[in-house]
Amino acid sequence: MSKFTAQASDATGIATIRTLAADIVGKANSGHPGAPMGMAPVAHVLFTRFINANPKNSKWFNRDRFVLSNGHACALLYILLHLTGYKLSLDDLKAFRQIDSLTPGHPEARHTDGIEVTTGPLGQGISNAVGLAIAQTHLAAEFNRDGFELIDNYTYAFLGDGCLQEGVSSEACSLAGHLQLGNLIAIWDDNHISIDGDTKVAFTENVEQRYLAYGWQVLHVDNGDSDLESIYNAIAAARQEKSKPTLIRLHTTIGFGSKLQGTHGVHGSPLKADDIAALKAKNGFDPKASFVVPQATYDAYAEVGKRGAALEAKWNALLQGYAQNYPTEHAELTRRISGKLPADWEKTLPIYKASDAAQASRKLSEIVLTAITPKLPELLGGSADLTGSNLTKVKGSEDFQPPSTGLGSYKGTYIRYGVREHGMGAIANGIAAYGGIIPFVATFLNFVSYAAGAVRLSALSGHRVIWVATHDSIGLGEDGPTHQPIETAIHFRATPNLAFWRPADGNETSAAYKVALESESTPSILSLSRQNLPNLETSTIEKASRGGYVVNEEEKEDLTIVSTGSEVSIALEAAFELKKQGLKTRVVSLPCWLVFDKQPEEYRLSVLRSGAPILSLEAYSTAGWAKYSHEQYGLAGWGASGPYKQVYEKFGITGPNIAKVGKKVVDFYKAKGGEVVSPLVKAFQL
Amino acid sequence: MSKFTAQASDATGIATIRTLAADIVGKANSGHPGAPMGMAPVAHVLFTRFINANPKNSKWFNRDRFVLSNGHACALLYILLHLTGYKLSLDDLKAFRQIDSLTPGHPEARHTDGIEVTTGPLGQGISNAVGLAIAQTHLAAEFNRDGFELIDNYTYAFLGDGCLQEGVSSEACSLAGHLQLGNLIAIWDDNHISIDGDTKVAFTENVEQRYLAYGWQVLHVDNGDSDLESIYNAIAAARQEKSKPTLIRLHTTIGFGSKLQGTHGVHGSPLKADDIAALKAKNGFDPKASFVVPQATYDAYAEVGKRGAALEAKWNALLQGYAQNYPTEHAELTRRISGKLPADWEKTLPIYKASDAAQASRKLSEIVLTAITPKLPELLGGSADLTGSNLTKVKGSEDFQPPSTGLGSYKGTYIRYGVREHGMGAIANGIAAYGGIIPFVATFLNFVSYAAGAVRLSALSGHRVIWVATHDSIGLGEDGPTHQPIETAIHFRATPNLAFWRPADGNETSAAYKVALESESTPSILSLSRQNLPNLETSTIEKASRGGYVVNEEEKEDLTIVSTGSEVSIALEAAFELKKQGLKTRVVSLPCWLVFDKQPEEYRLSVLRSGAPILSLEAYSTAGWAKYSHEQYGLAGWGASGPYKQVYEKFGITGPNIAKVGKKVVDFYKAKGGEVVSPLVKAFQL
Ligand SMILES: [Ca+2]
Ligand SMILES: [Ca+2]
Repeated sequence: MSKFTAQASDATGIATIRTLAADIVGKANSGHPGAPMGMAPVAHVLFTRFINANPKNSKWFNRDRFVLSNGHACALLYILLHLTGYKLSLDDLKAFRQIDSLTPGHPEARHTDGIEVTTGPLGQGISNAVGLAIAQTHLAAEFNRDGFELIDNYTYAFLGDGCLQEGVSSEACSLAGHLQLGNLIAIWDDNHISIDGDTKVAFTENVEQRYLAYGWQVLHVDNGDSDLESIYNAIAAARQEKSKPTLIRLHTTIGFGSKLQGTHGVHGSPLKADDIAALKAKNGFDPKASFVVPQATYDAYAEVGKRGAALEAKWNALLQGYAQNYPTEHAELTRRISGKLPADWEKTLPIYKASDAAQASRKLSEIVLTAITPKLPELLGGSADLTGSNLTKVKGSEDFQPPSTGLGSYKGTYIRYGVREHGMGAIANGIAAYGGIIPFVATFLNFVSYAAGAVRLSALSGHRVIWVATHDSIGLGEDGPTHQPIETAIHFRATPNLAFWRPADGNETSAAYKVALESESTPSILSLSRQNLPNLETSTIEKASRGGYVVNEEEKEDLTIVSTGSEVSIALEAAFELKKQGLKTRVVSLPCWLVFDKQPEEYRLSVLRSGAPILSLEAYSTAGWAKYSHEQYGLAGWGASGPYKQVYEKFGITGPNIAKVGKKVVDFYKAKGGEVVSPLVKAFQL
Repeated sequence: MSKFTAQASDATGIATIRTLAADIVGKANSGHPGAPMGMAPVAHVLFTRFINANPKNSKWFNRDRFVLSNGHACALLYILLHLTGYKLSLDDLKAFRQIDSLTPGHPEARHTDGIEVTTGPLGQGISNAVGLAIAQTHLAAEFNRDGFELIDNYTYAFLGDGCLQEGVSSEACSLAGHLQLGNLIAIWDDNHISIDGDTKVAFTENVEQRYLAYGWQVLHVDNGDSDLESIYNAIAAARQEKSKPTLIRLHTTIGFGSKLQGTHGVHGSPLKADDIAALKAKNGFDPKASFVVPQATYDAYAEVGKRGAALEAKWNALLQGYAQNYPTEHAELTRRISGKLPADWEKTLPIYKASDAAQASRKLSEIVLTAITPKLPELLGGSADLTGSNLTKVKGSEDFQPPSTGLGSYKGTYIRYGVREHGMGAIANGIAAYGGIIPFVATFLNFVSYAAGAVRLSALSGHRVIWVATHDSIGLGEDGPTHQPIETAIHFRATPNLAFWRPADGNETSAAYKVALESESTPSILSLSRQNLPNLETSTIEKASRGGYVVNEEEKEDLTIVSTGSEVSIALEAAFELKKQGLKTRVVSLPCWLVFDKQPEEYRLSVLRSGAPILSLEAYSTAGWAKYSHEQYGLAGWGASGPYKQVYEKFGITGPNIAKVGKKVVDFYKAKGGEVVSPLVKAFQL
């Protein structure tokens, strides 16, 4: 094991971080100085001694990943990025928490150079880190060869007491232990303070024992405020343990150096001016000067950049050698790193005719996965213990498991997530953030809500994560209202940059996968049925890929019914009924609002056109449907437990009843008179 | 410690449960036979030897609470309720998982006599049980007196592997350990099987060690299939440990007695007919007869009812004595048990004039809590480690803490939940289910989404739980998009029986609390601002209590703006601007859709009337607003980090810009011509 060598620049570097953190939060008059000041020593040791990354190319693939799970401490991260030479200037630090700055209140991936994952919502970052470590482990197993250890980075995460209390991290860390992720190193800022004060008011569990129970290595540093050697040794020991993730419990003093150090007074409020001045004086800085970085600090951190650039150069040379020795693997690895799908992959998508047998869309999803997987080895799937119900495990696929379990290998492409939806979602975000892999995850649609915190961050960060969300309505039948989603669709439809797909048949299911996989920076939820759905006469992958299209066209219609998923065929039944009564009914399928909304106005207005009333039909809450329709049919309350056809009957979602409702709508608008204008015609667009 | 005495009826009773479970699931051809069959022995021992409850009065207050956290095993619970004599017949068992039966696919509180809490979504039940135990502990501390141990029941929970994997249970059980809830006894059905097969594929952590880390007592029964004495002794030992919750690890064989016992084949599918027949034969039952309950079993279980009835009678006598010795406490306890609020409590609600200082609605919430708490001692509040931000701790209130911590007592009315939103929500559901207490819980609105699983069950079960959800929009400013809700409001508005309140000022905040507290079977989320809000000229508690009302009236208006919370005053600014341009603008505040929707049609149509276009304004996604308006202004995407006024500027939510938008709307509808009809006028009502 390597040994710690103290540098003259260490004290200055740490003091620079502490004073800068105070200045940054002070100037913004908003933010969290305490954790950055307390974690300055460990951050300094980690970045100057261990982190392998090239600040001049933040996307170098084999870089160590650093995650600040306690994202409110982002002043620390911004300082580190600035010192090591990422695209973040001192002026950017001065614009902390200001509109449109590169230094928002919590760190955002894809917004600021060098930020791996978006954090702030507690518990997410450490769970993302588990995903980052899974991705590294999997790609290493798949692509490394003797003498070509191309993928061998570490994932480091800082986390606070809050992250440890969140259930999402419990889920993810339990799985990380099971998976024996030796490249994952988490450092717990054990400062005994959270917003409510001393952690003893609510958090007295034995964290070390809990992590041992998960199968982690647990290390301990008594004095994280100044004992750099012990910090160094702990991280070095963590790196040496290759068969377990490591948690380092690091005792620190929150806001170290402030007059209020060790209290929650320094957690989430700027230090007072005199306190900042005293801090600077104590550290040998000019009390009157702000945002000072001594040249010695810049010099010390420049070494990090040099080390990283050299490592990347060495890695590029290794990659060249790999290209010569393993040209196929090289081509595949570089394609995977680019995030581009292979040419013609979409030709593997199943296509259906109306005469093909009715199938559940969860089954159609399985058929898609089976068809595309040979062409798309970047798919790394899994389910929260519902594999046989979600139908997500492609026949013959291997489990992603530690080889020692005898249950699979790290080359395996199927993850057994256990009953851990929120952890699964956050892990998938980390896998997607790593690159080279497209994760899909599965549970019942109703339980995607358990993972709402992770799904939201997926959308905000633009992770290509696909949720296979089966049992998507009252159509799941007997499991009843505890399992039948009502509010779920509109929740996710209202989330920006989240594609909620509800395909009506085989071609629409293929289309949902097509668009989801091609959307490099948008997560998707595929809402899939348990019950069988007939294939539509007019559906095609191309049409459904527009998010909405006309399934049944009529000239001079009396009514249009717009629907999704399992209710589209019921809308068609209703149209057929109405036809017998002399009423012409168009039927529109709208499988994805997000994608439909992006179509040209002319197209959208041709699908949901003026001239006749539009009735929406969906076996969910009607909330949100008034955007696309004049009248809305759906569920007014909860679902019910029973055989699914009877449940549909109970709520009037049958061809005959919807025909009756449609007739009422037609009569109402005829009686009302005047032109019926499409709801898409608006005074303004947001 | 008491000793186990075997009864001749034990074997028959257990066999009855196992064969009935197979019959119930078999007849429904849907459901989960494995866990009921595996847990039959522990259920038999617990119910025949320990449970103190009166099946003839399922609401007897000091009954032991039983929670089936693995709710999919509900055939077991229905059998127990039937055998012990609750209002559940053999015919009800035969109607398992059928429409409108008393035996839905997962157990639902308020639907079936004797069900304490709704379970099925994994991890919720055990977390509810923590809440039930907290409630018992708190009420005991408040009301018990020497010689009058009126409140001393136990809370028992069964849970499976899935419940242990869910983060919500990790959160709740960590807190339960901290709180030293000695009356909580959880029995883990350790059968090594979940839906994906052997639990070793994903769940290899050391659960016992984890629960020890939480501060629980952990016991162990090797043979849960037939060693009744060990089961008995473990439960008896758990009851004796008064300063810690207990987890009993019970090894069982899933589907015990089936040919497929010990495999996931018996988890979620009916047993085959020949397997059921063989099971019956093996147990001395007629293989051809179904739904057979031997008289010996009924007789044995009748003893449970007798014991319970006697205990209740004894308790009622004790209560009489209490009435004589402690008349004040008796009056208060019986009022609390009834769930009725004290007379005139609402007179303590603060009332505001427009000239009163602008304040943040989170501050207004604190003022309400401070005003009403002396009159409403049933309020048991808490926050997920955001007390100083949520402003939920009333000055002078004591923490709910184990006395040994020196931080409070069990009489304390303020719970430090830690950073555990989902656990907090599920615990609050349990507290509300116990009765005698109205729980309120707090976090940032954005993080109520972490608890979506619990919030949904709260609404489905009709628990009076109040969420104090502060920092409710881009108005939180610098924390940025990771913390700024966009989709959150419509998510909860679309959830049936969930009152989402977004008050605009002081009187509206009082109204939100008034309706929330008076709604005995509806949970509420109060969406509250971080920034100051002026008091409206025309608001009153009475008007706001209708969910929506006219804030600014005009005759023959050109426009109505409907808005909520912090945007109502911006709408008024816009109306003032438009007035200068000669356009008359009504302004409507719609703080709660659920409550507004329940008003008479005439009232609703008077508030959102025909005649002029209606523009909605809210700093969220516009999803859902088309129900109440013709045009919608809001956020098209994520928020931004910055001082809040600048964030509002960035997104155009200012008086001047909304006036411009309003003008556009007016012009658009004038150009369009024809009558402008209220969006509330519909062809049909759901
Ligand atoms: Ca802390
Ligand atoms: Ca199990």
